[in-house]
Formats: sequence, C-alpha cells, structure tokens
Amino acid sequence: MNRRKFLAASATAAAATGATALSKPALSQGKMEWRMVTAWPKGLPGLGTGAERLAERITAMSEGRLSVKVFAAGELVPGLQTFEAVQNGTADMGHDTPGFHLGKNRAFAYFFGAPFGMSYAEHVAWLDHGGGQALWDELSAKFNIKSFAVGNIGTPPFGWFKREINTVADFKGLKMRLPGMGAEMIKRLGAVPTLMAPGDLFPALQAGTLDATDFTGPANDLALGFHQVCKYYYWPGIQKPGAVQQVIVSKAKYDALPKSLQEVVRIACQAGHQDMLAEYNNINAKAAKVLKEKHAVKFLRLPDEVLIALGNAAGDILREEREKLDPLGQKIWDSYFSFRADIKELTEGADRAMFNARVLNFKYV
Amino acid sequence: MNRRKFLAASATAAAATGATALSKPALSQGKMEWRMVTAWPKGLPGLGTGAERLAERITAMSEGRLSVKVFAAGELVPGLQTFEAVQNGTADMGHDTPGFHLGKNRAFAYFFGAPFGMSYAEHVAWLDHGGGQALWDELSAKFNIKSFAVGNIGTPPFGWFKREINTVADFKGLKMRLPGMGAEMIKRLGAVPTLMAPGDLFPALQAGTLDATDFTGPANDLALGFHQVCKYYYWPGIQKPGAVQQVIVSKAKYDALPKSLQEVVRIACQAGHQDMLAEYNNINAKAAKVLKEKHAVKFLRLPDEVLIALGNAAGDILREEREKLDPLGQKIWDSYFSFRADIKELTEGADRAMFNARVLNFKYV
Repeated sequence: MNRRKFLAASATAAAATGATALSKPALSQGKMEWRMVTAWPKGLPGLGTGAERLAERITAMSEGRLSVKVFAAGELVPGLQTFEAVQNGTADMGHDTPGFHLGKNRAFAYFFGAPFGMSYAEHVAWLDHGGGQALWDELSAKFNIKSFAVGNIGTPPFGWFKREINTVADFKGLKMRLPGMGAEMIKRLGAVPTLMAPGDLFPALQAGTLDATDFTGPANDLALGFHQVCKYYYWPGIQKPGAVQQVIVSKAKYDALPKSLQEVVRIACQAGHQDMLAEYNNINAKAAKVLKEKHAVKFLRLPDEVLIALGNAAGDILREEREKLDPLGQKIWDSYFSFRADIKELTEGADRAMFNARVLNFKYV
Repeated sequence: MNRRKFLAASATAAAATGATALSKPALSQGKMEWRMVTAWPKGLPGLGTGAERLAERITAMSEGRLSVKVFAAGELVPGLQTFEAVQNGTADMGHDTPGFHLGKNRAFAYFFGAPFGMSYAEHVAWLDHGGGQALWDELSAKFNIKSFAVGNIGTPPFGWFKREINTVADFKGLKMRLPGMGAEMIKRLGAVPTLMAPGDLFPALQAGTLDATDFTGPANDLALGFHQVCKYYYWPGIQKPGAVQQVIVSKAKYDALPKSLQEVVRIACQAGHQDMLAEYNNINAKAAKVLKEKHAVKFLRLPDEVLIALGNAAGDILREEREKLDPLGQKIWDSYFSFRADIKELTEGADRAMFNARVLNFKYV
C-alpha cells in the first residue's frame, strides 16, 4: 500500500462513518455474526491485515457458528471509538490497542507496553504465564469488556528526523509527534511533543510544523512517505518496545458463548499475536532494505547519552505514574515491573548475548 | 518436577513401551479421537506441558469433534520413534522436534534452527510470511506427513561446565554432550562431543565421563540437578537459538479433515508456539534466580574469542552441509540463509539495540 492508497483508504473509511446501517447480528440455526470494528484503515499491512486474518480464522475454526465481519476505521464507527462501540453494543468486538484507552484507566498502559519496558516475548510470558492476563481481566471487567493480546509490532524505530541527533541538547525545541509516555519523556529533554492523525504527519513534516515523528516501522512508514522529507531514521524505539495490539469483546457476549467458541476466540487471538509480529518482521525487513538502498535513508542508533537521558526520564515518569493509579492499577504496575526485573536478567544473558554474538567478526555463510 | 520425579517419569514411560493396546481411533457420531505420541516424559515443564495444552485446546475448540489423546514417551512408542509411529499409523500425530529427524533428510535442520541462525521471532517470520512453511510442506510431503511449528525454547544456554572456559584452547579434549551441528562445531575446536540420554547426563558428569553438557534451559536443567556437579553456566546458546518444536500429522489424515478442523489444528499449533516460549521464559526466569541465589551457580558469557571461533566453525559446517543436500534441501538452505541475512539487519537495529539500551546506566524503576 503506497502513501496515496493508504490515505485514500483512510479518507474513504472516514467518509463512510455513520453511513452503514446498524443491522442486528444475524442469528440463524445457531449461527452468529459478530461485528468487529477496528482502529485501522482497510488493508493496512500488519494491523489491518492482521485483523482480517483473525476474523477469517475465527469464522473458519468455528465452521461459521461464529462468523466475524470486519469494519475498517470509519465504516461503522470512527477509529478511536472502538471501545465505546463495544461497550454500547454497536459492535461485538474491537481491534485496536490498549494504548488508545489510557483516558479510561491509566493502567491500560501496561498491557500496551512501557518506555524501556518488556519486549514482545517477555510481555507474553507475563500475560499468559506470569499473572498478567488475570489482572487485565480484572481491569477490563470494570468496563464490561474482555481483552486479549492479538498482535505486536515488535521493537519499532524511535522515529524519523529531519536533523541529526548528537546530544541531549538537540531535543531543545524539537517538534515531534509522539504519543503517551514517550511524549512526556522527550518533553523532559526540552522537546515539544504533539499529537496528530497519521494522514497529517507528512504535510506537517513538509511544512516544518513538525521536525520529527514516530509511527510503527519501516513498512507502514514507507507507505506514508516519511523518507521523502526525513533522511534520518533513529533506533531503537525504547518508547514502546513490543507494543501490544488487542481485541476487546463485550464481556457479557463472551461469557454467553459456549466454551468451544470462547476457546476459538482466545486461541485465535494468541495465534494472531505471533502471526502479526511475524508479518511485521517480514515486511519491515523488506521495507528497511528499500529505504536504505533505494532512498538512501540513514538508519542510526540514538547516542548513549540520549538513551541514558531518556531512560532517566522514563524512570521518573513511571514512578510518578504509579502514584496516579488506583489500587488495582498499582497492583498491575507492581506485577509488571517485578516480572520485568526477573525476566530481563534472563533475556539479557540469552537473547541480548546471542544478538551481540551474531555481529562479532567471523566468517558465516 | 525435581530430578527424582523427572527420572522416575522417564523410567515409567520407558517401561510402558509396547504395553498399551493399539486400539483403533474412536469414531462415533462424527467424533474422532487422535492419538498424539510425544518425545517427552509426562508432565515435563515446557515440552510436555505444552503438548498437553495443545491437545486440550484442539479438543475444546473442535467441541470434541476431534479429541486428542496424549501419550508420553514410551507409553505407546519410544520417544525417538514418533516420526515412524505417525508414518505407519500407530499414531495420528507426533509432538517432538525436527532436530530429531536429520537422519531422514538433513534439510529438516532448518526448521529446527542452525548455529548462529535465526531467532524465534525471525524464524516464524520466515515460516509464516517468508515462504518457509511451503518448503517445509514440500519436504514433509515426501514422508507423507504435514509439519507445524508448535513450540520454542527461546535462546538457550550454551551449557554447563565443570571448569571455566577462557580461551579456545580450553575446548581441547573437553568431553561435552551436544547434538547435531553444535557437536561438529565444538569438535573443530578440539572437543570430544558425545550423545547421551537425558537421564545419563548427571551420573556421567559426576563420574567425570563428561566435562560439560547442554540441555534446554534453567528450568529443565535445574530439575536434572546439573548445578550439583557444575558451577559454570555458559551463555548464549548459539548452537541453537530459537530451537523449534514441531507437531507432525499424517498427511492423508490431515487432508481428509474438514477445513474447519484443519484450521483448528493449524491455529492451535501457531498459538502453541508462542505459548510454549512464554511458559519457558517464565519458568526459566524463575529457575535462573534459584540457580544464582540458592545454588551460587555462575552465569557467564562465552569469551568473544570462543564465540568467534565457534562462528567460523559454524560457517564452514553450514557451507559443507549445503553440498550434502538434495535439490529441495538446497532450496531450503538458500531460502533460510537469504531470509536470515535480510531480517538480521532489522533485528540488530531494533531488538539488539533495544536490549543494549536497557542495560545502560540510568535510574529506572
């Protein structure tokens, strides 16, 4: 999907808002149809295609007893109203990210990710075997929903920059699009974080209203054309390593499903989590090559001085965040960071050491 | 599971070999029962529990239309005869690892992993989105089976050592249990690799017949008691980063399933892949803490000099391996290493950089 198609798809989707009839779910001979609203433009590689595969798989595995119909952002409700749509019954399921719903409860952040937080593999270990899912269920139940991790973009870039970043001082006055705790982090380094819809980023960078932006990664970024205005692509995306995407389901409707269909939904989401990461890694590896070789984009690592300053800011922000949480939120925060501390030691000795070993100077194939 | 229980379970399983009646699969009112033989002792955390969860999920999602009954190693056939059991119809499914079947075709190695090869996340990107699964299907079809990735142990340790490893010279004459290409790798550094059943490793280390051994990781290793005879635990396990476990199914039986059940099996395996990794990361993080804090085991990183020598040996071995492959095997080899080259660049800039950033000197929570 190129920039033009991507934006056209978003526009079509937005224009269609409200135009779709709110038909009741079809129910015949024990067959149900669930409407799944998503926060993504139709066919967006990774997020959009992942949502479509999920729907196909639930439909196929249940032999049509539960068929899922996908609505792109704006087709049934706007992309940022998935949560409300599931709560008020306009939709049965939603496909978005917990990162969109911090306004409902700040603790949703830890099911999305945290600055310098857990990687994809660490986070699923916490969710599925370290008590994370039970806490997520408890928090979600307060909103009459059930939440499942359903996708991941892996470790993303930090972002696109029009100028080089050499020291912390280079953040002074820098206008950068960055959401969530990442925004607060660069603010403490003197930057001016702003929020903008994806379609507005390119013109803003062109006009100079923005100096830098983050988004998802090489494949989606290439489609948005950022390389045409920014030549510096900084890594790693420590603002959101292992950013989790979610499915939300009406709790009452999920609880009313027969056990077999509950498992179909739950297991399809778990498989989808790995599958979306795999799709992103594949398309990102290919897009990174195009960006480097065809568009001469410079892939750069943030200097240690900057990473350390961002890490210190992240520590301050996260400790302040804990104070703003309700008791359940604090229980979630404590569980997340205590699990991170233990598993980080394993990962550093295993994965980090392995990745570092692979770049040593030996003759491979 | 402690060492005694683990070994007792293996012994019971082995004694039971052949004692189970080979009843035909139950078929009534469209309900099927499939027998899944595994290569693992009953209840072995990770490999064994992963196999049991997989069976429960297929049974639950299919509402019992396809129920899967698990047989531990030795209950129906010995642990290393899963492949033959599926081929000859003694079992319908098998749960083991492609690493066990290099004798059938050396190219199965690349669905397991390769020394300094792809990580878990890179490998699933290749399998599910980079053409790997189609090649695996083609190779498996020659043996009348269908293969699915179903689990991962992540990046394991390199192994347990009774002595410190400081230089390449320390491998001279070292007697180490290590299978596959890892064995050939240390042989070229002067070591004497041997193969032994898991239950024989501890006594061999105790008696001095072995100086070192690899296995799976902290949790399974702790149960086997290696820390009682070895104080040095070397990382990372570059001999098999992201070692893949598999389900094999009779191709004729899989093809004969209705599409909905084919999808149930396929998606359950995909979800199981992430789920087993998550379980291992959770139990390994906890076991690593016990090994360090309670048993004073030294977690050490192999010196760069040794990693480079191992990397050079791996390069030589893998290039020689290519020459020994049939045309399909060479196609698989080429696909694996060309995908690895591209995705490695992405991973080094993203995950590696993120893990390295996390250990910088800043004040986190």
